[in-house]
Amino acid sequence: MTTLTLTEIAARLGELETQGDIQLQGVAALDTATPGHISFVASSKHAARAKASHAGALVLPTTLADQVDRPALIAANPLATFARITALFHPEPALQSGIHPSAVIDATAQIDSSCEIGPQVYIGADCVIGANTRIGAGCVIGTECQIGANTLLHPHVTLYAHTSIGAHCILHSGCVLGSDGFGNALEAGRWVKIPQIGRVIVGDDCEIGANTCIDRGALEDTVIGHGVKLDNLIHIAHNCQIGDDTAMAACVGIAGSTQIGQRCQIGGAAMIVGHIEISDDVMVSAGTFIAKSLSKPGAYTSVMPQQPHPDWIKNAAHLRHLHAMHERIKSLEKELVELKIGVIS
Amino acid sequence: MTTLTLTEIAARLGELETQGDIQLQGVAALDTATPGHISFVASSKHAARAKASHAGALVLPTTLADQVDRPALIAANPLATFARITALFHPEPALQSGIHPSAVIDATAQIDSSCEIGPQVYIGADCVIGANTRIGAGCVIGTECQIGANTLLHPHVTLYAHTSIGAHCILHSGCVLGSDGFGNALEAGRWVKIPQIGRVIVGDDCEIGANTCIDRGALEDTVIGHGVKLDNLIHIAHNCQIGDDTAMAACVGIAGSTQIGQRCQIGGAAMIVGHIEISDDVMVSAGTFIAKSLSKPGAYTSVMPQQPHPDWIKNAAHLRHLHAMHERIKSLEKELVELKIGVIS
Amino acid sequence: MTTLTLTEIAARLGELETQGDIQLQGVAALDTATPGHISFVASSKHAARAKASHAGALVLPTTLADQVDRPALIAANPLATFARITALFHPEPALQSGIHPSAVIDATAQIDSSCEIGPQVYIGADCVIGANTRIGAGCVIGTECQIGANTLLHPHVTLYAHTSIGAHCILHSGCVLGSDGFGNALEAGRWVKIPQIGRVIVGDDCEIGANTCIDRGALEDTVIGHGVKLDNLIHIAHNCQIGDDTAMAACVGIAGSTQIGQRCQIGGAAMIVGHIEISDDVMVSAGTFIAKSLSKPGAYTSVMPQQPHPDWIKNAAHLRHLHAMHERIKSLEKELVELKIGVIS
Repeated sequence: MTTLTLTEIAARLGELETQGDIQLQGVAALDTATPGHISFVASSKHAARAKASHAGALVLPTTLADQVDRPALIAANPLATFARITALFHPEPALQSGIHPSAVIDATAQIDSSCEIGPQVYIGADCVIGANTRIGAGCVIGTECQIGANTLLHPHVTLYAHTSIGAHCILHSGCVLGSDGFGNALEAGRWVKIPQIGRVIVGDDCEIGANTCIDRGALEDTVIGHGVKLDNLIHIAHNCQIGDDTAMAACVGIAGSTQIGQRCQIGGAAMIVGHIEISDDVMVSAGTFIAKSLSKPGAYTSVMPQQPHPDWIKNAAHLRHLHAMHERIKSLEKELVELKIGVIS
Repeated sequence: MTTLTLTEIAARLGELETQGDIQLQGVAALDTATPGHISFVASSKHAARAKASHAGALVLPTTLADQVDRPALIAANPLATFARITALFHPEPALQSGIHPSAVIDATAQIDSSCEIGPQVYIGADCVIGANTRIGAGCVIGTECQIGANTLLHPHVTLYAHTSIGAHCILHSGCVLGSDGFGNALEAGRWVKIPQIGRVIVGDDCEIGANTCIDRGALEDTVIGHGVKLDNLIHIAHNCQIGDDTAMAACVGIAGSTQIGQRCQIGGAAMIVGHIEISDDVMVSAGTFIAKSLSKPGAYTSVMPQQPHPDWIKNAAHLRHLHAMHERIKSLEKELVELKIGVIS
Repeated sequence: MTTLTLTEIAARLGELETQGDIQLQGVAALDTATPGHISFVASSKHAARAKASHAGALVLPTTLADQVDRPALIAANPLATFARITALFHPEPALQSGIHPSAVIDATAQIDSSCEIGPQVYIGADCVIGANTRIGAGCVIGTECQIGANTLLHPHVTLYAHTSIGAHCILHSGCVLGSDGFGNALEAGRWVKIPQIGRVIVGDDCEIGANTCIDRGALEDTVIGHGVKLDNLIHIAHNCQIGDDTAMAACVGIAGSTQIGQRCQIGGAAMIVGHIEISDDVMVSAGTFIAKSLSKPGAYTSVMPQQPHPDWIKNAAHLRHLHAMHERIKSLEKELVELKIGVIS
């Protein structure tokens, strides 16, 4: 178990103001922390909960400095600071360089000697894997893939041939990168497959969730920028381009050739049609269906509000007749005007 | 092929009233059954189909006892009884205790000698696996996982480190338990990863569908109760708690820290936002988006009704102007009142 | 690198009219093509882009023959022709017949000697695999599966026991076929599993996307016709029947026992409830929820249109009160009629 004093933590993270000192054994949430834990307070809204917490130390926003009588670190961004403290107490397991004897590695693959290649991995011809990268058990890496340094593939990741992954990435189990885009030409009622010859290119510092799929491009590449964070069970279709630092929650689907800007936040289960452009700094609400390009930053939504089922039944029937409802209102307005004229004249 | 008489079946299941006897070779649906089959009738609504069936025997609800001239078992819950009869005719393949020579098992893992460990499995350090549990081909079990007795992992299941699975569970292929929750702190436009140090805890008698993902908790654990049934391609985010005997159909997504009660039924493709509480005995309709806590049992819905596309085009345009429509109605009401006063006065 | 003249391409594809000749090194999109590339023009709408393209040759629709001063192939269906040309320049890697030494194959499996069986594959008892079929690294094939000739399983495909796949199919990584359907009988608040004894039967010329799941039937089979194209992360529940040449984009979910006709096109993230019938030639828009049978060909839609979030907030509130809004309009109409009678009389 790691033990650290508040002063040591401040020193490791650099440039943090401290208030008092204490020896700490770990991190915990405000409500469940005990005196050996450090916890965090996101904003001054939570001052009362902070005071009630049993945490031995707190990460406080500058607005709460001196407001809570407790050893503390003062941080501009308490959540980000707490994330780094959590990493100090819970470091990644030490890299165990080497290739497990059950792995099957093509003789032409260039794997840095510092890499950790797990059991039952397969790595194809002409792959290049950078320093300190870990490949978890059962991963399959197709021919001519490139993986940067300090990247982590959890077990059961699949990379199709020619996929390129940057440095400092995390790929979760079951994700599939480089599968064929869904391209078919209709000919006399049957589908002719359009070979998908583009690649998937992923930048540095990306995280890709469990069972997420990113298809290779049809003619050009599917490109995921730097710092992109994708949750589980996401589908990114062929030729999409996702801008730097964009994040998507789980179950999102992006259809083909859509371009998404930088720093966008796409809520869970949002669906975005193909061949559109989403500008930088767009927020799409969870469950929202985006059918048109969005050229301005801002938040966009399209979900039906939930109702008790009997109420929904009563209201939903009218959705099929909104146009008729609108026409009736127009007609009422016209008649009323005519009536007024009649009354007045 | 298994052959059983109706009397033998009744004896194996215990306490069932029989009507006549017959030798049977298997189970089938009412409409496709032949004289060697036993089928079932869910309720008296299906009496006519029951009479028309060629099934040699039937499981009948008590309301149809003596109404169908056929060997029969009389059951309070014909579907549940039929499920048990199906299991008699189609028992699981016999357990083949032992570890396949191609499996890679850490020396510190404690695996009951009755277990069946399939080809190309990897089991990490300090895992504990109970009696009569089967681990299918290609499964990857991270360090310090616990799996109860009589549990079945189909091929290609991934458990991250520290995951705990109860007894009598069934995990389907491609499901991933214990992947990192989606936790990132935004700092100057970039994401700082929040290490996810909680676990996934699954109770007894659970079934988890193919390619379903359950993320580990951020600080505390993600907890799946006893008897929970999850279909395919479901996402359960970090810190969720799912109550006992709750069932979810395929493609459901549950965002982080949401608590769902006991005996809930969540329809396919329903999406539930984070940080809310759903009470016991709630039914969520398929395709429904739940954005707020639900404190009362009952059924809730929020789907748009389908329409022929040209009708939808006409109606959907008005959805963007419902508020304006409402204001026009208010205005009409006001004018009409004024007009009436004018007319009357 | 493959090099082909326009005349050679025309000869390989058969019966195509050519206009001029040129030596070509590959295919590209209109806007990125260089003089060594052949590109395509889908319709005369794109005539201007065609003229501006740097492509050395073009596939032109008959309407543009002689309209573009460039070596060209004249095709009734330029996209389908371009797909075949792409395949000429990018042929599948040559089949490497044989079984990788790390694969584990049951002694009773019948595998054609021309097959390519990759590393760490597991093939169970009594499987039958046709000529020229490739099984990618880490695939798991359960007992008594059948796979036709010239079929390709990418890495990490899972087939449960008794699954049958036709000839000339492509299965992408992470797809799971034959997992148990979601069948449970509710008994005193708990779920009793209904054993799923049907199979999954897939026809010829099908493509199944990454991490897509197709469940086995409960009593009968789940049947996917010939020429069916399924994208990634699709769920097909037990007992569904999908007609020939139907295509589904990613993230679609089809609930149990639903029958879908031939040549349907199901948009991404569409959800279709169970126990309904969709006729031939139905198009379902992306994101649409289909809750009732569709007996006529045509396009159907049910998505909420997106709005800036503040507008949505204003409008969505009224969705809960559409019935009341409708009643107010009815009431206004009645009052107006009464008023008119009063005015006129």
